[in-house]
Amino acid sequence: MEIVIAKRAGFCFGVKRAVDMAFGEAQKKGRKVCTLGPIIHNPQVVEKLRLAGVEPVEDPVDADAVLIRTHGVPEHVMEDLKKRNIEIIDATCPFVKKAQYYAKLLRQEGYQVIILGDSEHPEVKGILSYAGDNAVVVNGNNLNMPRLKDRVGIVVQTTQPIEALRRAIDKLIQNVKELKVYNTICNSTALRLKETEEIANKVEVMIVVGGKNSANTKQLANLCRGLGKKTLHIEEVSELRKEMFDGIKSVGITAGASTPSWIIDEVVQWLQLLN
Amino acid sequence: MEIVIAKRAGFCFGVKRAVDMAFGEAQKKGRKVCTLGPIIHNPQVVEKLRLAGVEPVEDPVDADAVLIRTHGVPEHVMEDLKKRNIEIIDATCPFVKKAQYYAKLLRQEGYQVIILGDSEHPEVKGILSYAGDNAVVVNGNNLNMPRLKDRVGIVVQTTQPIEALRRAIDKLIQNVKELKVYNTICNSTALRLKETEEIANKVEVMIVVGGKNSANTKQLANLCRGLGKKTLHIEEVSELRKEMFDGIKSVGITAGASTPSWIIDEVVQWLQLLN
Repeated sequence: MEIVIAKRAGFCFGVKRAVDMAFGEAQKKGRKVCTLGPIIHNPQVVEKLRLAGVEPVEDPVDADAVLIRTHGVPEHVMEDLKKRNIEIIDATCPFVKKAQYYAKLLRQEGYQVIILGDSEHPEVKGILSYAGDNAVVVNGNNLNMPRLKDRVGIVVQTTQPIEALRRAIDKLIQNVKELKVYNTICNSTALRLKETEEIANKVEVMIVVGGKNSANTKQLANLCRGLGKKTLHIEEVSELRKEMFDGIKSVGITAGASTPSWIIDEVVQWLQLLN
Repeated sequence: MEIVIAKRAGFCFGVKRAVDMAFGEAQKKGRKVCTLGPIIHNPQVVEKLRLAGVEPVEDPVDADAVLIRTHGVPEHVMEDLKKRNIEIIDATCPFVKKAQYYAKLLRQEGYQVIILGDSEHPEVKGILSYAGDNAVVVNGNNLNMPRLKDRVGIVVQTTQPIEALRRAIDKLIQNVKELKVYNTICNSTALRLKETEEIANKVEVMIVVGGKNSANTKQLANLCRGLGKKTLHIEEVSELRKEMFDGIKSVGITAGASTPSWIIDEVVQWLQLLN
C-alpha cells in the first residue's frame, strides 16, 4: 500500500511554540502552572501536559503562573489577570496577536470592525474584545451582514479559508464607501488545505488525524469528503481497523494544526505494518 | 409605439454643475474664458459653449480665466496654472475630487496606490498624479496586476462598473496583507446602468444617446448589445431613419452622463412624430 504523508501535517508554528512553552514551564519546579482552558484542541496533548503537572483551568485561583493558549483571550481577561498576583505566560499565537492588534487599530481609526469567523471560537471572542462596541462577527459560511456604517474594517479568524474573505468583501464592497481589509488568514492553514487537496486527489482513502473538536481539522476532513473521497477523521490510531483498508492501494495522511507528530507517526507505523 | 425614457438619462450632478458654471462664465462680459480641453465628451455641448464664447484650448495662453472640466487635471497642471496670472474656475466633479483626495491620502499613509480604470482617460491621469511614484493604473477589463507591496490601497475611476472593482479585489486579496479600498464609483453611473438594463429587457429597440467618444455612453450601448438587444448609439436625432423602426412596437431611450437634455428631448419628439 502506498502511504502519502502531508509535509504540512500537524503542529503549525504557533501551536508548536505554545506547546513547547508549556512543557518548558512544566519542567520548572516549585511553582504551580496552569493553562487557561485546554492549551489546544487536542485531548491527547492536554492529557500529556496534565501528567507533566500543567492543568487546564477555567480560573487560575491557586496557580503561580497562567499560560494563555494560542487562541488568545479577550482584553478584559488579560486586564483582570494583570491585576492579580500571578505570572502571565503569553503563548497567544503571534498571528492571532496581530489580528487582535489590527482590530484595535481599526477601532481607534474609527472603523466599524467586522470579524470574519466563528463567533463561538475562543480566538474570535478574543479578537472581538479589541474591536469596539459596534464590532460584529460575520460567519464565513452564511455571511449575514448587519446594517453597516460607511467606513468598515475587516479582520479574519486566522484559520478561515480565503474564499470566505473573498465572498465577504464581494458582499460588502457595494454597500460601503471605505473598506480596510487586514488579511489575517494564516498562510499555514491555506497551504495545509492546498496540500491536503492535492494528496486527496491522488489516493483512495484519506486519514485526517486530529481533535474531533478542532475546527481546522474538521475543515480538512470536510474538504476531503467534498472531493468525494473516503475520509477517516480519527483522533488516535486505535480508531483504525484493518478491514477499513481491504483492497486499498493508496492512503493519504493529513493532520490539523493541533495534532502532535507522535500521533501522526503512530498512524503511519500502523499502516506500514499492514503492508 | 411605446417610448420608455430612462429617468436617469443624461447629465449627472457633476456634469450639470460644470456646464452650468461654464455658461454662467460665458455671460460675464469683458474677459476671455476658456476650458482646458473639451468640457465634456459631447461635441454638441462643446460647440454650443464655443458659440457662447468659451473655447476649449490645450494651453490657456491668452485667456483671463480657465475652467477645469469635470474629469479634473493632474496635480502639476493645477500647480502650473496657479503660478500664472490667470483665474482658475474649478469645475472638477466633486466625486472625482474625492478620488484625487483619497489617492493622495493613501500615498501619504504609505500605501501603494492602485487606480482601477482606463489609463488613457483624463480622469484617471488626474487621479494618478496624486497617487505617488509607485502607483499603478489597472484596467478593469484585463486586470494585469503588477508586483505589489504588502500594503495596497485602491481608488476607482468614478464611472467603472462595480464588477470591475469586485474582480480586482478578488485578485488582490490573497497576495497582500493589507488592502484599503475607497469605493469611489459614482452611484449615478451604477444606477443609470441598472435602469438601462431594466428598460432594455422590456423593449424591442434601445436608443443610446451620447458622444461616440464618451466612455460611459459606450458602456451603456455595450450593456444593451450584450443583452442581445438591437441598439442604436447616436449623437444626434439626425442619425435616426424612419425605416429603423418599421414594425417596432417599443423603444427605450437612455443617455450618457454627458448628454444634454435638449438632445434627448429632440429624439423623443422625433419618435413621437412617427406614431
